Amino acid sequence: MKAYHVAIAGATGAVGKEFLRLLEERNFPVASLRLLASSRSEGQVLPFRGEAHTVERLTEQSFQGCDLAFFSAGGSRSREYAPAAVRSGTVVIDNSSAFRMDPQTPLVIPEINPDDLAEHRGIIANPNCSTIILLMAVAPLHFKWPVRRIVVSTYQAASGAGAAAMRELITQTEQVLRGNLPEPSVFPHPIAFNLFLHNSAVGPDGYNEEERKMILETRKILHDDALQVTATCVRVPVLRAHSEAINIEFRNAAPSPDDARQVLAGFPGVRIVEDVAKNRFPMPIEASGGNDVLVGRIRRDLSHERALEMFVSGDQLLKGAALNGIQIAEELIRRGSL
Amino acid sequence: MKAYHVAIAGATGAVGKEFLRLLEERNFPVASLRLLASSRSEGQVLPFRGEAHTVERLTEQSFQGCDLAFFSAGGSRSREYAPAAVRSGTVVIDNSSAFRMDPQTPLVIPEINPDDLAEHRGIIANPNCSTIILLMAVAPLHFKWPVRRIVVSTYQAASGAGAAAMRELITQTEQVLRGNLPEPSVFPHPIAFNLFLHNSAVGPDGYNEEERKMILETRKILHDDALQVTATCVRVPVLRAHSEAINIEFRNAAPSPDDARQVLAGFPGVRIVEDVAKNRFPMPIEASGGNDVLVGRIRRDLSHERALEMFVSGDQLLKGAALNGIQIAEELIRRGSL
Repeated sequence: MKAYHVAIAGATGAVGKEFLRLLEERNFPVASLRLLASSRSEGQVLPFRGEAHTVERLTEQSFQGCDLAFFSAGGSRSREYAPAAVRSGTVVIDNSSAFRMDPQTPLVIPEINPDDLAEHRGIIANPNCSTIILLMAVAPLHFKWPVRRIVVSTYQAASGAGAAAMRELITQTEQVLRGNLPEPSVFPHPIAFNLFLHNSAVGPDGYNEEERKMILETRKILHDDALQVTATCVRVPVLRAHSEAINIEFRNAAPSPDDARQVLAGFPGVRIVEDVAKNRFPMPIEASGGNDVLVGRIRRDLSHERALEMFVSGDQLLKGAALNGIQIAEELIRRGSL
Repeated sequence: MKAYHVAIAGATGAVGKEFLRLLEERNFPVASLRLLASSRSEGQVLPFRGEAHTVERLTEQSFQGCDLAFFSAGGSRSREYAPAAVRSGTVVIDNSSAFRMDPQTPLVIPEINPDDLAEHRGIIANPNCSTIILLMAVAPLHFKWPVRRIVVSTYQAASGAGAAAMRELITQTEQVLRGNLPEPSVFPHPIAFNLFLHNSAVGPDGYNEEERKMILETRKILHDDALQVTATCVRVPVLRAHSEAINIEFRNAAPSPDDARQVLAGFPGVRIVEDVAKNRFPMPIEASGGNDVLVGRIRRDLSHERALEMFVSGDQLLKGAALNGIQIAEELIRRGSL
């Protein structure tokens, strides 16, 4: 079996560390591994398969001899270094938003639109975490019963803003429990025992960037520009799994909850969690650390005859980020195109 | 000015204590005060206007000579004792769900349907907290631009399940920060750094009781059985303010966000919080302890030409419970019917 020279750009971040862990856990065919980060993290040592790997500074020369690079170092670093990586002959799987809406860059969830990989020109974009978790629950239904409109409200974990934001949630919570005022630094507002609208810029139409990503990326991934989406994105004091309340209106008659449940249960990467007697449905602490997106509370919408309601939770760092990226690479290998 | 003999049933609970505090803060015309609770809390001493009041055991005889009783001791105690209070000539303002859907019991938010008070037969029901907070933002628009359908997702605080649930959120959070597993006792699932679907029974249609309350109470309060409502109710690790993401579809053309904002800004009990530059919108920590329901993120729904989106936060114990109850009593006095 062929093995690959792999780089991780942003290796010391919350997603970067999950890339590293997953490459080992999934026995990814790694011939050599290069860990890259900003000069601030240069020299850090991270273990991979029992060996110490020293983090190097990310430069335009970092990718020579690399077959594959996972980027998770923010949009500006992706814009700066991904083209250089591509020129070096490296296939880039980019977790940032830099290239997601570029018409020449495929935006891929491997369970949903793997064939889009065929058209890549060196960069493949990993969708936004909230979009991935949404579509893992919506696309399996959409393929069978076309969806007309989605109304989604999110309950997003601190991890989406990185490792420092996860630490801030813990630190602030300790401050509040000691009777002190929380001191926001990563987030614009206190996150301990609080919630706030997603901390991305609000545009002239009143939608913030995270909401806009969910709308535009959904259409691109499902190849359906007529699909209507509205989203309200909210940060909640949860560490690393996003949840979403999803209202799905179908173009034609809605499937029964049982039919929807059956289709979702058969979809790879989805797990139904619906124990009515124990009032147990998808929860972030159960989604955290797992590969599956949990789906439950599937019910007919009492307010609309062509709609269903459901609730989902998925690990933001795994299926929402690193796992999906690794799965893209695995799919490229399966297709013989890496 | 006439003063009233007042009782609080459930005086030692989270809502009961807010009733007590608000009666003092708002200088309610109290001639005498009787604090009632279960035998477990009998003998506790609570201050009111600088005097110690001893909690008595709630019995059928507790209401003799009382003009007005605030009930917040749970549905079964309301069903058991409210009729006895009414027989004693006491007007009951009941914070439980026991009588809310009784056709002979008015269900009142004083800013919205005060005229329904005229028809009371001794008991007036205080709506569910999530319903009050929803309708404070929806009704002002509905009066001017009739609403056809509401899709709401809630972010509900621990206080809705009482003082013990608020303590459980704190205690569990301390446990988790010490590296221990959280131990749920009031809630069925861990609440620290987690969230879960509202802990009320799920019916055959897949909706839980809290969601059903939001649907049915909305129609009763707005006198509009054609109004379509769907809700997903979720508990989040927040202490005492509920938030809600609300999608409102109008029967005819939607108002512009500016027109909606202007109407809401002029409605008593509503405060607009919309600072786009600072990314500051309604948050539970800003709603907590305040009387106003905070409304923001008012925007055209990009997915539906006749819909608006908005986000609200309101103190669950105040406008969601005790404050609304006191306002009902104040409105009765204003109308000369107490």
